[in-house]
Amino acid sequence: MDENKELLTEIARIAEEKTKIPAYPRSVLNVLAAISITDDIFWVARYSREALNLVIEIVKELEKRGFVEYDRGIRLTDKGKKFLEEVGYELSFKMCDRCRGRTVVFSEILSEDVIKEFMKIQRNRPEAIQQYDQGYVTPETTLARVAYMHYRGDLKGRDIIILGDDDLVSIAVGLMGLARRIAVIDIDERLTRFITKTADEYGLKIEVYTEDLRNPLPENLYKKFDTFQTDPLESIKGLRVFIGRGIAALKGERCSGYFYLTLMDASIDKWRELQKLLLTEFNVVITEIIPDFSEYINWGYMEKMHAWQKLPEQLRKIPRDGWYVSTLFRIETLRGSRGLVERIPPEEDIYYDEELASA
Amino acid sequence: MDENKELLTEIARIAEEKTKIPAYPRSVLNVLAAISITDDIFWVARYSREALNLVIEIVKELEKRGFVEYDRGIRLTDKGKKFLEEVGYELSFKMCDRCRGRTVVFSEILSEDVIKEFMKIQRNRPEAIQQYDQGYVTPETTLARVAYMHYRGDLKGRDIIILGDDDLVSIAVGLMGLARRIAVIDIDERLTRFITKTADEYGLKIEVYTEDLRNPLPENLYKKFDTFQTDPLESIKGLRVFIGRGIAALKGERCSGYFYLTLMDASIDKWRELQKLLLTEFNVVITEIIPDFSEYINWGYMEKMHAWQKLPEQLRKIPRDGWYVSTLFRIETLRGSRGLVERIPPEEDIYYDEELASA
Repeated sequence: MDENKELLTEIARIAEEKTKIPAYPRSVLNVLAAISITDDIFWVARYSREALNLVIEIVKELEKRGFVEYDRGIRLTDKGKKFLEEVGYELSFKMCDRCRGRTVVFSEILSEDVIKEFMKIQRNRPEAIQQYDQGYVTPETTLARVAYMHYRGDLKGRDIIILGDDDLVSIAVGLMGLARRIAVIDIDERLTRFITKTADEYGLKIEVYTEDLRNPLPENLYKKFDTFQTDPLESIKGLRVFIGRGIAALKGERCSGYFYLTLMDASIDKWRELQKLLLTEFNVVITEIIPDFSEYINWGYMEKMHAWQKLPEQLRKIPRDGWYVSTLFRIETLRGSRGLVERIPPEEDIYYDEELASA
Repeated sequence: MDENKELLTEIARIAEEKTKIPAYPRSVLNVLAAISITDDIFWVARYSREALNLVIEIVKELEKRGFVEYDRGIRLTDKGKKFLEEVGYELSFKMCDRCRGRTVVFSEILSEDVIKEFMKIQRNRPEAIQQYDQGYVTPETTLARVAYMHYRGDLKGRDIIILGDDDLVSIAVGLMGLARRIAVIDIDERLTRFITKTADEYGLKIEVYTEDLRNPLPENLYKKFDTFQTDPLESIKGLRVFIGRGIAALKGERCSGYFYLTLMDASIDKWRELQKLLLTEFNVVITEIIPDFSEYINWGYMEKMHAWQKLPEQLRKIPRDGWYVSTLFRIETLRGSRGLVERIPPEEDIYYDEELASA
């Protein structure tokens, strides 16, 4: 047993050295357990709930030591199986297949018409581009996001702002016809044009702003909303800007914010850092953390991302959609909460940090 | 609109004055919206997600002003309906009925035998008593709790400790036969005797300790476990003791803890206070917050609880089971996490604070 522990510690140490991502013996166990469920390294990252860059380095170390082998995919060798059995570790991955682990079923909350129209509209959306670290969710995920907002009283009669909207949340909210005000900020003109055009076509009242969130919010968006939604950049600086501006857009106490965070591009240690930021600098409360609420569609630039270059050649295979997921966070403002108001210099790189696999 | 806002603010102010629980205009809106879903004041508390003591005072104020009336239950008057419509606020309460909003379905993760045996054993459990602020969950909830642990790799091959176990989690874990070590601490001898007797009868290896958590953990429980479970007292002092001792029982990094927290006995402001404690004093990360995961069975001393006395007479009716729910929190230890090791004086009242409705 002590020997096993030593081995796990050693592999974690090497993987951390290579990636600069905190790695623990349990990270290695999670990867081993995930490999016993799937042979695709991207899905190993999903099931293990460890950062993709870290998973890749752990897998390489496991291969070197004969615990896994690459075939058409990745699999445990007999030695690997024996090790896992000895340790007795197992992930029993089986989420509810009715709500897909989201706790609510969007088709029970949204009308058929809204669902149908949205499915049609999103077919012509702009493709995700690497320049802004885009990558959008499945249309079902967008619908689940707005259904959840409605479920929680954050949509009907409310003023809603979306910060960065390649997921087209604003259009889904618009189609429902229940919100009082809808505003979108995005830096990408292809997107703001698409949303404006769609809104015109369908008679939806959506205000669209092409802005860089490094700048403070325009006066008419500052402290004006009940609810924000954002699928932020996952560098700590990016998280601070997207969520901080979201909070700054809220009217005051007991307003709510939704954002989504992965364990692919953010380690569990980064989650802690962010949570400290939420509780101290922003002084908000976290009301929900629902794992893997959002599923993403593979983006066109997968083969250009940092992590792809690090993959063992045998494992460079585009995975089926759904491996990249993110967790829903809902926060509420209370007495003493505050958002981000100061300007971030335009030369500051909010896109990159070492943990990001998709950058 | 401003008139409406003023009214909500005024009602919140009065309710807060009476209860000492932070109250907001939105608290009043939540109560109004919940009354349009149910006529039972206990269920109003559930759907509104506001503390029961606060809900009671808000309801009284609404009645005084003619927005609600008491019949056999509680309902909106025409004036109340008109107000809610004007404000345009709505909760669309509809959770997944397959997993009951838990994200996993326990019967897909546990064997039929375990489910059957547990259902049988729990029928003879000791009744909940007020002295220790007990109140246990449905057997389905206990099964869902252990299923979730297994799902997340926190059960098989792991050393597990339960701090306070009127929910009989230890027995469900024992029946599964997958954990390496199971320990229970409870202050109530009726419970520790029941668990010991059942363990003997079914040949389960469960270590049972009758202890007061105000005392530091015995040597053989300190830093010895991978996972803890606790359904804590909901005073801030109680939360600190139960969760802090849980963390102190963990071996080190990347161990996990589960606890459950209501919005019945704890306001959303108390949630924030607790989250600060978790992030700063204990320095752990919160990995999941799954709303209303646990459903409780009405306890025998309902009519003796503080909140009952405050109820308008017409509303003093034992509600059907399921109104009292709690949210699942899962935390993980990381580098720098620490638990509670110092002694809490026996004379310190960890049971009571002003927000508690069930005390």
